[in-house]
Amino acid sequence: MLDYSPIVDKIVREAKQQANKGEVASYIPELSCVDSNKFGISILDKNGKGFHAGDSGEQFSIQSISKVLSLAMAYSLAGEELWKRVDVEPSGDPFNHLSLLEMENGIPRNPLINAGAIVICDILVSNLKNPKSDFLSYVQNIANDPSITYDDKVAESEKRTGFRNYAAAYLIKSFGNLENDVETVLDFYFHSCSLSMSCEQLTKVFYIFMNRGNCLKNKNYLNLSQVKRINAIMLTCGFYDEAGEFAFEVGLPGKSGVGGGIVALLPNQFCVATWSPGLNKKGNSKLGMLALEKLTTETGLSIF
Amino acid sequence: MLDYSPIVDKIVREAKQQANKGEVASYIPELSCVDSNKFGISILDKNGKGFHAGDSGEQFSIQSISKVLSLAMAYSLAGEELWKRVDVEPSGDPFNHLSLLEMENGIPRNPLINAGAIVICDILVSNLKNPKSDFLSYVQNIANDPSITYDDKVAESEKRTGFRNYAAAYLIKSFGNLENDVETVLDFYFHSCSLSMSCEQLTKVFYIFMNRGNCLKNKNYLNLSQVKRINAIMLTCGFYDEAGEFAFEVGLPGKSGVGGGIVALLPNQFCVATWSPGLNKKGNSKLGMLALEKLTTETGLSIF
Amino acid sequence: MLDYSPIVDKIVREAKQQANKGEVASYIPELSCVDSNKFGISILDKNGKGFHAGDSGEQFSIQSISKVLSLAMAYSLAGEELWKRVDVEPSGDPFNHLSLLEMENGIPRNPLINAGAIVICDILVSNLKNPKSDFLSYVQNIANDPSITYDDKVAESEKRTGFRNYAAAYLIKSFGNLENDVETVLDFYFHSCSLSMSCEQLTKVFYIFMNRGNCLKNKNYLNLSQVKRINAIMLTCGFYDEAGEFAFEVGLPGKSGVGGGIVALLPNQFCVATWSPGLNKKGNSKLGMLALEKLTTETGLSIF
Amino acid sequence: MLDYSPIVDKIVREAKQQANKGEVASYIPELSCVDSNKFGISILDKNGKGFHAGDSGEQFSIQSISKVLSLAMAYSLAGEELWKRVDVEPSGDPFNHLSLLEMENGIPRNPLINAGAIVICDILVSNLKNPKSDFLSYVQNIANDPSITYDDKVAESEKRTGFRNYAAAYLIKSFGNLENDVETVLDFYFHSCSLSMSCEQLTKVFYIFMNRGNCLKNKNYLNLSQVKRINAIMLTCGFYDEAGEFAFEVGLPGKSGVGGGIVALLPNQFCVATWSPGLNKKGNSKLGMLALEKLTTETGLSIF
Repeated sequence: MLDYSPIVDKIVREAKQQANKGEVASYIPELSCVDSNKFGISILDKNGKGFHAGDSGEQFSIQSISKVLSLAMAYSLAGEELWKRVDVEPSGDPFNHLSLLEMENGIPRNPLINAGAIVICDILVSNLKNPKSDFLSYVQNIANDPSITYDDKVAESEKRTGFRNYAAAYLIKSFGNLENDVETVLDFYFHSCSLSMSCEQLTKVFYIFMNRGNCLKNKNYLNLSQVKRINAIMLTCGFYDEAGEFAFEVGLPGKSGVGGGIVALLPNQFCVATWSPGLNKKGNSKLGMLALEKLTTETGLSIF
Repeated sequence: MLDYSPIVDKIVREAKQQANKGEVASYIPELSCVDSNKFGISILDKNGKGFHAGDSGEQFSIQSISKVLSLAMAYSLAGEELWKRVDVEPSGDPFNHLSLLEMENGIPRNPLINAGAIVICDILVSNLKNPKSDFLSYVQNIANDPSITYDDKVAESEKRTGFRNYAAAYLIKSFGNLENDVETVLDFYFHSCSLSMSCEQLTKVFYIFMNRGNCLKNKNYLNLSQVKRINAIMLTCGFYDEAGEFAFEVGLPGKSGVGGGIVALLPNQFCVATWSPGLNKKGNSKLGMLALEKLTTETGLSIF
Repeated sequence: MLDYSPIVDKIVREAKQQANKGEVASYIPELSCVDSNKFGISILDKNGKGFHAGDSGEQFSIQSISKVLSLAMAYSLAGEELWKRVDVEPSGDPFNHLSLLEMENGIPRNPLINAGAIVICDILVSNLKNPKSDFLSYVQNIANDPSITYDDKVAESEKRTGFRNYAAAYLIKSFGNLENDVETVLDFYFHSCSLSMSCEQLTKVFYIFMNRGNCLKNKNYLNLSQVKRINAIMLTCGFYDEAGEFAFEVGLPGKSGVGGGIVALLPNQFCVATWSPGLNKKGNSKLGMLALEKLTTETGLSIF
Repeated sequence: MLDYSPIVDKIVREAKQQANKGEVASYIPELSCVDSNKFGISILDKNGKGFHAGDSGEQFSIQSISKVLSLAMAYSLAGEELWKRVDVEPSGDPFNHLSLLEMENGIPRNPLINAGAIVICDILVSNLKNPKSDFLSYVQNIANDPSITYDDKVAESEKRTGFRNYAAAYLIKSFGNLENDVETVLDFYFHSCSLSMSCEQLTKVFYIFMNRGNCLKNKNYLNLSQVKRINAIMLTCGFYDEAGEFAFEVGLPGKSGVGGGIVALLPNQFCVATWSPGLNKKGNSKLGMLALEKLTTETGLSIF
């Protein structure tokens, strides 16, 4: 296994010098007050060795990164039936999530856009006794870290302002693709997005996608076929309408969140998480994208 | 003035013989149990003389026809400011009300589609002390008929199933084009759509659009410019994505509702209402459309 | 009949004082060199009396106004069969003529958008021995004016740069809705758009739409139903995505062209043509729109 | 290196037993007469060892597979400048290539859809002295096989019926994103798509994308970054609107053609080509897709 210390140190050093850090997300009021100078990176290799630099131990709101985790839990509970309710194709257009939903009869394009994740949350609500605490336990268990929690303030903040998610949920409901009522599903959805984690914690959770479904404690959460498929979806759909660009520039399956986090992985090799709150125009962490591009360019490691 | 007795009698006679009456709307459960054999027509001429045939005295749910009435009241209250929040162009596509809303930043295409009528209802909620009773009084006063009421069962029925309207309202709210909260606005919207009227009552209310804003009692409700503009909007936008077809075949400003009602008018001449619950594929009353086509073809009367 | 002299004089007077005249169309090179200070208006009443002011006798390129004339000729040749190949609904969106064509299997929304007019030209090419000269004769005969001609330089100029029309024609062809080859149809289409007329000549040609299909010499060109339908289409589709606005502000059936001409009419009353080369953002003559709005506001005359 | 003989034999055996082979493409007349019972597969490993079964030596029209080859040649000639004229994002929607082009100002979504490949061909026409013969030599050289040729009959057949490609080209031209004239570019485009190759030949040509840009003779055609990027584009965009599904089910970068060919690769391991003329509803070879799914499932080899 490689020693990733020099590269993570170099990445942090260069990130600190970047003048243009992008814009911190403002549409969720509670997120807008994060310090845009924060930058952290963690790499966890297959042997369980971690390489950390910058603010890698500080927790932030993982937001959409949680969509991969709710998908993983729903996939292991519902199996292939899940794909009757959500597709696996890139969404293509930035602006028209709702219009695609309309044209495609309430079947979201993929589970990593908001509409798709809402359907996944509906599946979890139907399958879990206590959705919020059961999902949290699932994530804590994977990471072997009971300190991971929801940030209720962030969840409440999004609930008060997340009108577009309400619109998506009601539209899906109008097509009969939501079993539970909108308020219950969105309450769970907003909480799942409000998970707080550090870069270090993120790499531990996503270790299962790099290591054939097995966590660091070697407990199995997903079978090989499920892992392969979730990784494929991350690659084709993990970065909104910049998924092609990320595959092109970085070449790793991954997922970003508007809290400024990005997590990515090279199967059987390593898992990496970055955090920089400033976003580019497409809603992905500006310096995080650059850091991962540098990582794969300098190490020559990618799935391609 | 013409004697419309022979033509309304002939229209009812022929309607009774039609085998294919279209499909009664089923998406609002409370509406689905209406007898599809009902057919009524009323013509009210400028002198106040009425011509009635068939079930013209029986009340039905006017549904979207109410959109013209809420527009009229909001227009007289808010004036030209109203057009900053809703446009006056035909919506064109049948399927993508929500996608157009997305592309056009929450400004509905016109006040006669659902999204536009929801914004109009928001304006009324902001401007009226008791929106539901004030609007009802407004309609009763125009018709000089205090027996006109809401049908609470229909309003409740639509509230329980109107997920797509919730989706539209939340999407508009996400763009900042809804001042009040979604529940309040939709409660008013669903009630306004639940107004019950007969063909006779409908012609009395719409008399103001035919008679330069003045009702049968000669009280003025709208100025000439406002009447002209509302009539223009009815012509270009009053029949969903069949507006062009209606202008082409009938050639009168008008509005339809999924309850099977249609109202139309020839300025300074007459106002006409038909009721037949079966709808064509575009959601307009099948026999009502045919009746109005016959009326203008046989009398040679139209705005063109 | 009214004396329209004072109003046409007033309109020209006020137009001359307008500082912002809009932008002269530049996409057809040959049109871009027209003097933006030109302004003409002609009204022709039902009795055949004409009222002229400004540059009403000067010829300009009528461009899309010709679409109404090719429609009229094709309608009288092909009858109602014509509507199997082109619809009568407003196009709604400004930007996606081609995408609507794609979604609707090559059936253009209406005959007054480019795609629809290309299908109409295809019908004429199939039905006429010498399409270009036969169509020109048709227009000259209606106006009783053999001096009307094509402007070959304009036609050639558009042919060299009209790539978007080629795209539309090939797309229609790919759906099997074009009988003749693209080059032949577009050659005819570009020539029909290149007709040169003055405001005076335009009112004489459009007199048939105001006078139940009969020209000034009382020869009949269209039956009453056809006239009514063409007028309905002009009202709902005559001004690109500003058709609703024109109906709302002016309230007359009409048609505009990027050469800066507009023609409109009130059935059984008058026909009016304006010319001012500067366009607004939607591609309609800026001062022409204002002039017609003033005309109907001050005279109180409109179909509504 | 693995012995792929058993798996390719098994795949052919099972393919021969499949009752439902999909539909042979009929829109290019010349392709419609291919025998739908043909099935071939070839695997070429990194060491240059080939494994062949079924009709692997028979030539067929590679059609869209050629888009990867024209991209490779244009990329090495124009460098990163190329990405100013074509994007790298999945196209998402099946039906609206042209509408996306309209909305995105003539910049095709990616180089593997028709519109994008037409822009790539324009770049080659601008950069090559004899586009058709120079491109053919490029492909022959990579494969070290001068017997590879165009099928002029197929090229002519598509030219006569490819109206939709003409529409796309003219639309791109209207946005100024085509330097050469449409006829010249499309003549080259139709010829490039008409390349005839066998599965064996295809694996030899695509060997460069598996082997860091180097062909079997170890001559370099692309640098490492270019190879990585082309592979990323194949993965996200190589199968029309089934790209997500292919990544999900198969997990390899690849490209299909309506001639029934598919080629895919695992970097540094192997290159595989299949041929079965029957297509599924999305336009990809039905049995080819199944064969590749079986290959990666049974061997456990994929990029994920």
